[in-house]
Amino acid sequence: MSNDRKNLDEMLNLLKNLFEDGIPFNKVLGLKIESIDKNDIRLKFEMRDELVGNTLKKILHGGVISSVLDVTGGIISMADVIGKMAGRPQDEIAKRLFKVGTIDLRIDYLRPGKGKYFVATGSVMRTGMKVAVVRMQLHNDRDVLIAAGTGTYIIG
Amino acid sequence: MSNDRKNLDEMLNLLKNLFEDGIPFNKVLGLKIESIDKNDIRLKFEMRDELVGNTLKKILHGGVISSVLDVTGGIISMADVIGKMAGRPQDEIAKRLFKVGTIDLRIDYLRPGKGKYFVATGSVMRTGMKVAVVRMQLHNDRDVLIAAGTGTYIIG
Amino acid sequence: MSNDRKNLDEMLNLLKNLFEDGIPFNKVLGLKIESIDKNDIRLKFEMRDELVGNTLKKILHGGVISSVLDVTGGIISMADVIGKMAGRPQDEIAKRLFKVGTIDLRIDYLRPGKGKYFVATGSVMRTGMKVAVVRMQLHNDRDVLIAAGTGTYIIG
Amino acid sequence: MSNDRKNLDEMLNLLKNLFEDGIPFNKVLGLKIESIDKNDIRLKFEMRDELVGNTLKKILHGGVISSVLDVTGGIISMADVIGKMAGRPQDEIAKRLFKVGTIDLRIDYLRPGKGKYFVATGSVMRTGMKVAVVRMQLHNDRDVLIAAGTGTYIIG
Repeated sequence: MSNDRKNLDEMLNLLKNLFEDGIPFNKVLGLKIESIDKNDIRLKFEMRDELVGNTLKKILHGGVISSVLDVTGGIISMADVIGKMAGRPQDEIAKRLFKVGTIDLRIDYLRPGKGKYFVATGSVMRTGMKVAVVRMQLHNDRDVLIAAGTGTYIIG
Repeated sequence: MSNDRKNLDEMLNLLKNLFEDGIPFNKVLGLKIESIDKNDIRLKFEMRDELVGNTLKKILHGGVISSVLDVTGGIISMADVIGKMAGRPQDEIAKRLFKVGTIDLRIDYLRPGKGKYFVATGSVMRTGMKVAVVRMQLHNDRDVLIAAGTGTYIIG
Repeated sequence: MSNDRKNLDEMLNLLKNLFEDGIPFNKVLGLKIESIDKNDIRLKFEMRDELVGNTLKKILHGGVISSVLDVTGGIISMADVIGKMAGRPQDEIAKRLFKVGTIDLRIDYLRPGKGKYFVATGSVMRTGMKVAVVRMQLHNDRDVLIAAGTGTYIIG
Repeated sequence: MSNDRKNLDEMLNLLKNLFEDGIPFNKVLGLKIESIDKNDIRLKFEMRDELVGNTLKKILHGGVISSVLDVTGGIISMADVIGKMAGRPQDEIAKRLFKVGTIDLRIDYLRPGKGKYFVATGSVMRTGMKVAVVRMQLHNDRDVLIAAGTGTYIIG
């Protein structure tokens, strides 16, 4: 295993810990990182009573959906930064990660958020020195597409 | 006071109760309706530890912002429906309110979400038989514009 | 060939003619329908001097890109309506096609619009009685993704 | 008149000429700058046959609307850059203006584009070292709001 690869894994692991423990509202959402690699990130969360937006229909609150897709785009942007800065000192990378933030976000609510659990994925459509554009999706436990989004993130 | 006006107030009050008690995730956000009229709706929530997205900077999680703006657009769309159906039987109005839902949403994150409390407002840009388009804003306790959004809602 | 299939082809052909001859600004853009089927529509246009937005860089004007992606989403929504109304009288279908219109649109400008010609494609993400949500892409002659978009269309 | 003010006026004038003569597709749209100041820019264009999207209804093509609003946001972003760089050498400012470009755009089509002429305006919602977020509106000759948009622009 190369040093670069080892450093990349360390950074991605750091990102996972920061994400799950260091961001209070992610805990409210119950978000867990299922898998994380430079090009493949999956977030998962269980349906819970407090995430409901319509008690009669027992479906996810729209805000839960937009929150999860925004977080997904953000962490994919961060992984993109980590991948691009491979080989650089960790504190330099960490410093740049702190600058990552959402500029704008579009969410399309496609189908009712019914399910036992939900999985969010995404991919970078464009990346450069300053800005990344990411597409995100949310599927339920039966692989139905619940919502889709596009986010623009400042990355440098 | 006319009967229409009385019915309108009753419906808006019903909406307020439904909103604050019947939607679990709104309680997580701590959302309260400060004022509600056909053309003027203000939502308010206090900063709380679990709404934080960045513990170092103590700012709101982006998902809290998108959630609150989506809810704001939704309730404004509902008030628009109530206003348009003034004079109709309450159960007919209620039935139609259940159909209101977000189709899509754009959020612009303008400034860090710092503050003791936050106020969300909005206004209808277009409304018709089927769709309403609403613009929303989030200000902090010092009246700084934190974020803005545009939402398209199905209303019939 | 079934009657339904024949009617579908007739309607799609009608759509093609209407689109290329009946909409003046489509001629300005030089838009041609390369292929049209219920689930596969490709639009094409050549680079021309008057479509340029930056004479030094010789790239497409951003407005050409947003125009083409909006048109692409619109025609895909119309084809969706035609597909759903298969078997219904043509004048009933035509009447409904006239109601199709863009509610809102997001465009992401990903790479400079360089090329000899450009191809726009798209697919329906959600469709129902009232609204369709469509994703569109624009590629150049070397299959580079120039721009992507999401549009919400009223369809009924 | 201060030198700074004189330089600002020169730059804004340069921008006006570049805009009206140097961008071919702007000529197709027939776009003219009615007024240009650091904080107040108005673009105007006349209805013409080739801008029509629906010959029966004689309304603007949606692509004309998205084009004009994109251009409006872009020129407002450029004026913002000029204002911020007041006092710097003109070639330095010009160099930075060439970097301005649209990252993403949302357009809301609110009412049919009927009118003899149309006026586009806008204002900066957020600006910084790298990105500006601008809101734009299109009104017709009777001051009816036809469409609204939000654009994110790279500015540095």
